Amino acid sequence: MKDVYQEALKLHEEHEGKIEVGLKVACENAEDLSLAYTPGVAEPCRKIAENKDDVYKYTWKSHSVAVVSDGTAVLGLGDIGPEAALPVMEGKALLFKRFAGIDAIPLCLDTKDPDEIVEIVKKIAPTFGGINLEDISAPRCVEIERRLINECSIPVFHDDQHGTAIVLTSALMNALKVVNKKPEEIKVVISGTGAAGSSIIKMIHRLGVKNIYAFNINGIVIKDDYDQYDFLVKELTEITNPDNKRMTLKEAMVGADVFIGVSAPKLVTKEMVESMNEGNIVFPMANPEPEITYDLAKEAGATIVGTGRSDFPNQINNVLAFPGLFKGALSVRATKITEGMKLAAAKGLASLVDESELNADHIIVSAFDPRVADTVAQAVANEAIKEGVISD
Amino acid sequence: MKDVYQEALKLHEEHEGKIEVGLKVACENAEDLSLAYTPGVAEPCRKIAENKDDVYKYTWKSHSVAVVSDGTAVLGLGDIGPEAALPVMEGKALLFKRFAGIDAIPLCLDTKDPDEIVEIVKKIAPTFGGINLEDISAPRCVEIERRLINECSIPVFHDDQHGTAIVLTSALMNALKVVNKKPEEIKVVISGTGAAGSSIIKMIHRLGVKNIYAFNINGIVIKDDYDQYDFLVKELTEITNPDNKRMTLKEAMVGADVFIGVSAPKLVTKEMVESMNEGNIVFPMANPEPEITYDLAKEAGATIVGTGRSDFPNQINNVLAFPGLFKGALSVRATKITEGMKLAAAKGLASLVDESELNADHIIVSAFDPRVADTVAQAVANEAIKEGVISD
Repeated sequence: MKDVYQEALKLHEEHEGKIEVGLKVACENAEDLSLAYTPGVAEPCRKIAENKDDVYKYTWKSHSVAVVSDGTAVLGLGDIGPEAALPVMEGKALLFKRFAGIDAIPLCLDTKDPDEIVEIVKKIAPTFGGINLEDISAPRCVEIERRLINECSIPVFHDDQHGTAIVLTSALMNALKVVNKKPEEIKVVISGTGAAGSSIIKMIHRLGVKNIYAFNINGIVIKDDYDQYDFLVKELTEITNPDNKRMTLKEAMVGADVFIGVSAPKLVTKEMVESMNEGNIVFPMANPEPEITYDLAKEAGATIVGTGRSDFPNQINNVLAFPGLFKGALSVRATKITEGMKLAAAKGLASLVDESELNADHIIVSAFDPRVADTVAQAVANEAIKEGVISD
Repeated sequence: MKDVYQEALKLHEEHEGKIEVGLKVACENAEDLSLAYTPGVAEPCRKIAENKDDVYKYTWKSHSVAVVSDGTAVLGLGDIGPEAALPVMEGKALLFKRFAGIDAIPLCLDTKDPDEIVEIVKKIAPTFGGINLEDISAPRCVEIERRLINECSIPVFHDDQHGTAIVLTSALMNALKVVNKKPEEIKVVISGTGAAGSSIIKMIHRLGVKNIYAFNINGIVIKDDYDQYDFLVKELTEITNPDNKRMTLKEAMVGADVFIGVSAPKLVTKEMVESMNEGNIVFPMANPEPEITYDLAKEAGATIVGTGRSDFPNQINNVLAFPGLFKGALSVRATKITEGMKLAAAKGLASLVDESELNADHIIVSAFDPRVADTVAQAVANEAIKEGVISD
């Protein structure tokens, strides 16, 4: 087997990164120059000066996104700084183009101050159609995203929070069909209450799930400990642990219908899965090593297993969500990405698995299914129009 | 004749701008994804985290430039705002790619505060190999550029100041050969002391010109009026008007060897040109309408005329300088672009007109001469190494 890390290093060095600028118009003679640059370029400038909205008509704004990071929570590597984060942001730009035709550029910031990040993003916003926040540590990322959503007139979306949540929710919808259960009836145990975990909890709650038990490094989230939590976990006390019980992860797993992991390797044992309800669903998504391996979970009798890995069935992969989500938002010039639009994205994604094909090892389509981005985009665009969050 | 403005508008609308993101690596299957994105991408990230300089090896930083504007001095249109400036910045990005293979992206900022612009540029700097400032009004642009040159470790260059200066200086060098005069002997009259004018004055002074008379809307620059000037014009009192005489533009033109215009249309009359010294050189570069037309200046007996227009001989075009300048600076990882490097660029550019081809209507090569960028780049790189302004 080839060493993926050494291969990747070689690839990055050979090409000096992964993206470049491409030209959409000719520039081979003085006439070309006079249209693309002076004096011709003055005319689109004048039009936009007269009517700011025309920037969507004459520039790349209608199809461009800035991928913004401060490098504080990069992959599993942590706070490695803006330079070291750049390969990931270039990769994200590559995915935007490949899967949705969106022209995204990386923007790694040499500051960790949430106020400064908010100000910078607001001030670069005229150039872009949308902002994708990436690999910013929690709970700062949530504060930064919320402020930007309020203060920017273009869509701002933090993929680490909501990308996984959308794809997981989509997978859960289809998994529940397979085991013939309803969101309202199930008991869900989730390990991880950071960026992704808290967004997942909110999204499945919105889907109708009432019994959610959330765990983090300090144990179960419980109202009794409210004062010890940051604002993000405080919010979770409102929608998790309805009977306010203090218990261990192992205790919570007894009789659970669904386990969701966005935390750390090997937290879940075979016995824990065995103690779950019949028709159980296990989503151990810690990457690259999950909370429990696909094989072990299956051995323990899990009905459905989905992980973050591409080498097992049911990969929960962010790339199924963000390209189509932005494509849809940009297509109707949405001013923000709402909870409803994210849920619409999940439903659109779930709809791609036909009832006739649906089974325990096929609850979600492949990232390379060519229908994904457009289906998600259409669902998101329809919802944006329905909610009226589009530019006049 | 086609209407260049309507043609340009159509072109911009048809393509929704002029640039896009191109992919340098494949992304067609799970293996591709594992190299360009997770998990493989973690390896270049780790390498850069260990040694920040490796960002030049594994990302686009070695060949990327941000074209930054606040939209306060766009073409001849003035302060039209960041959105309306975007077509120009996209155009600049197009020229960077077309002429030097550099991947440049537009960044139009929603602030006019020099402190904020400086802070934003410093904080986005990790992502780029260089910063091209563009269409920022004077004298703010000079202050912003100087602060950034001091505070950034990557090259920062304001093209409106120095681009024209480099190309003009190059043209002047060759023009002086044609008329067989030396910089030390000539009298130069220049109309315009803004971004471009002040940089031209400094560069030709560095070339050896001692008799320079500078004019702006308030008349001649003179030490007597020092207290009324902004910092930029104050600096010019040191190197212009050596005998501290108060005179009109018309009076100054009598016996002048060179006229340089970066000001406004029709400021120079036929009579003024007739009053100049024999073997006179006239560079009326106001755009699109020059201080005096090529034809009228020739009628008045000008030996050499160069304008900003592509439809007359000797076009003084910025695109002859900035692509090669950045290419050279990036190739040796220069930490800044010095006065010496700018003068080296001018000399390199001038060298492209062979002595045997040199004549009054051919003192500078065409923007489409394929040798330009590499020749300028080589001259700039050599000078950077000579001055030791490169990364260790």
